[in-house]
Amino acid sequence: MSRRPESDTPRQPSQIAILRYLRVHGPAARIDIGTATGLSPATVTSLTADLMTQGLVQESHPATNGNGATNANGTHGSTRGRPKVLLDLVPGAACVIGVKLTINLIEIALGNFKGEIERNTEHSIKTRDLNAQELIDLLIKLIDRFIKDNNDIITTPPVGISVAVQGVTDSNSGEIIWSPALRQRQIAITKPLTERYGGIVQMSNDANCIATAITQNTALHGGGDFAVIMLGYGIGMGLVLNGNVYNGHFGTAAEFGHMKYQPDGPLCNCGRRGCLEAYIGDYAILRDAMGLVDLPDTNSLHPSEEQMMDLVARARNGNEDLADLFRHAGKILGYGIANLIALLGPKQIFITGSGARAYDLMEPELHRGLNLAQVPELRRGPEITHLAWDKDLALQGAVGQSLLRHDENMFQAGNGN
Amino acid sequence: MSRRPESDTPRQPSQIAILRYLRVHGPAARIDIGTATGLSPATVTSLTADLMTQGLVQESHPATNGNGATNANGTHGSTRGRPKVLLDLVPGAACVIGVKLTINLIEIALGNFKGEIERNTEHSIKTRDLNAQELIDLLIKLIDRFIKDNNDIITTPPVGISVAVQGVTDSNSGEIIWSPALRQRQIAITKPLTERYGGIVQMSNDANCIATAITQNTALHGGGDFAVIMLGYGIGMGLVLNGNVYNGHFGTAAEFGHMKYQPDGPLCNCGRRGCLEAYIGDYAILRDAMGLVDLPDTNSLHPSEEQMMDLVARARNGNEDLADLFRHAGKILGYGIANLIALLGPKQIFITGSGARAYDLMEPELHRGLNLAQVPELRRGPEITHLAWDKDLALQGAVGQSLLRHDENMFQAGNGN
Repeated sequence: MSRRPESDTPRQPSQIAILRYLRVHGPAARIDIGTATGLSPATVTSLTADLMTQGLVQESHPATNGNGATNANGTHGSTRGRPKVLLDLVPGAACVIGVKLTINLIEIALGNFKGEIERNTEHSIKTRDLNAQELIDLLIKLIDRFIKDNNDIITTPPVGISVAVQGVTDSNSGEIIWSPALRQRQIAITKPLTERYGGIVQMSNDANCIATAITQNTALHGGGDFAVIMLGYGIGMGLVLNGNVYNGHFGTAAEFGHMKYQPDGPLCNCGRRGCLEAYIGDYAILRDAMGLVDLPDTNSLHPSEEQMMDLVARARNGNEDLADLFRHAGKILGYGIANLIALLGPKQIFITGSGARAYDLMEPELHRGLNLAQVPELRRGPEITHLAWDKDLALQGAVGQSLLRHDENMFQAGNGN
Repeated sequence: MSRRPESDTPRQPSQIAILRYLRVHGPAARIDIGTATGLSPATVTSLTADLMTQGLVQESHPATNGNGATNANGTHGSTRGRPKVLLDLVPGAACVIGVKLTINLIEIALGNFKGEIERNTEHSIKTRDLNAQELIDLLIKLIDRFIKDNNDIITTPPVGISVAVQGVTDSNSGEIIWSPALRQRQIAITKPLTERYGGIVQMSNDANCIATAITQNTALHGGGDFAVIMLGYGIGMGLVLNGNVYNGHFGTAAEFGHMKYQPDGPLCNCGRRGCLEAYIGDYAILRDAMGLVDLPDTNSLHPSEEQMMDLVARARNGNEDLADLFRHAGKILGYGIANLIALLGPKQIFITGSGARAYDLMEPELHRGLNLAQVPELRRGPEITHLAWDKDLALQGAVGQSLLRHDENMFQAGNGN
């Protein structure tokens, strides 16, 4: 081609690629930004100059010797001549708020423009006692108070509010379809919060938030499509295809837990029978455990972490009946993963969530179930990684989703100034 | 932003977007190209001028009045002033070859730069008698002869050869993993053909080719993610996410037929038990039918279309046992679709393939199975469309895949001249 076109397409602008790279990889030299984004040196220089003028990026001079010049990829800049200048995001360029709603707990976090959580608070609340209006009123009260309490560092209004919800959500409509944290179903979240805070509000389920957090963590994820399976009260999944969380056309994709293991199997909380979740979810394991051991005052609809840890301890300490429950759950998880591999063949599958507390008991049968179910010729499958449960990962991902949206709002075609 | 960057990113160049739009939508005015691709009028003018210089695009003057000025979207250009000039691809700018391998049949087609099939031939061949080397030798012999026989219009070497294979394939390695057309497994196709024809060869399964053909047909597909389920000897699937056929990290994704219906269910041709295909595939239906009615000299490993049509006719003519086989297959297909919806939630699901010959018998139970299996709150599901079986669609898609690859070879970053 004799000429290059202007980049005025609706595709992702280069500025977003630069911000995204710096947020994931930390301080980086212009040449490394160019290599990673495919932008020419001249374009990187020009665009980063613009981003610096806008106060989004700053130069970050590395230490004058030793490992200070090591960039995120572990390579060293030239030590001859002047030291390589690194670019970094300006932490205070914007702030965002992440909110996490799980059963009996609401957490709120303040994230800076680099995606680091600077402050967070926890509120123990009987979430299942709240109706839709009370939930909204409470969220607004808690967010308002959080902003007021942190006005020493929240000097400009937050540019994003992202709510991570345990359960099944519709990201398109902004509704909670069903959550173990709530008694009521189909609660609109995004709309009333948008009326209060403007178009900076979004909502997603916790598994999608964790998937977002993994995409932004180079220690966990080296690129490629992946799924993160969340074991816990129910079975969730976040799916990342081509670098982005996949929500499907109707905003409700990646409901791995409601794929079927067996027609007419045990009743699932969704109202159908034989879903994977009806075998692997905490409530399913506790329901079966109640038939095996004496568990007074147990309500399998709301298993506590203490109850589940007690079952795991008994299983590890020689109660073979209970150990079999976890092994059985592992086998069925393996079957489910075989279906996931047949349909999508991702590069990597992470298994995490509070339910991964018993992963050691589940793992051998998981691989047996997978081997039983998988087409022999498709055995070269994804790496299956147990990711130790970090309950802050969802909040981290909520902050990350807000920042991704904010980047787009700043630079998406038609929004440029 | 004060400045726009050059478009020197590794993302899809704008030229590809223009060629792709014209191939799908037919002749279009520059302004409509701009609207569809998000490119500015100045950029469209500049890029299409380049494309015309290269002989890829030409002006196509519409008829001087009446409906001649109607573009692909059904809108009319201004009728005042000079008539709107439409741009179109130059059919002879390049030619590609599509090859389709199914049981006992090899088809070869010549496609022009617009994606139209100009010539095609069929060869009846006992494909299952061929070993790997004989298959490759035969394909080369048939392709060479086809090029020679059509040298009146093949005046420059083909720029792409795409092979569509019935069965399970690995698009990354270019191997046929398993095909009902062949006795031998794991046959490398792309490598030996590349040694003969150069790096223009690719291979895919027939379902992926049909998915490609659907993306290029505005009468079938209005945009959005979709799956096409291929009923026939086995059960295949093509999956289109974000406009492109999804092959997964290992090149073998979308094996819908090997998702499970029931652990320890009937034996599947893949060697595992309980796969959807082991209930819905022609071989599975014929296997069961042999226990119900007298079918002398029947080998369910290789059901012929005549045998299958005979079963359908008997089912429609009052043999309730046989009708139940098709109804049962429909119910299980509905269960499988419920899993697909839970995991991916595509906008549309097409059902086609030779096995759709009995769709009328299957459809009511398909919806019943879907309703039984689907989480009530996720009922707002995709549109499920029966696509009457058109055996040329796979060949059309093979031609389309070759052209997509050729566009990329011409304009992808690093390949520009």
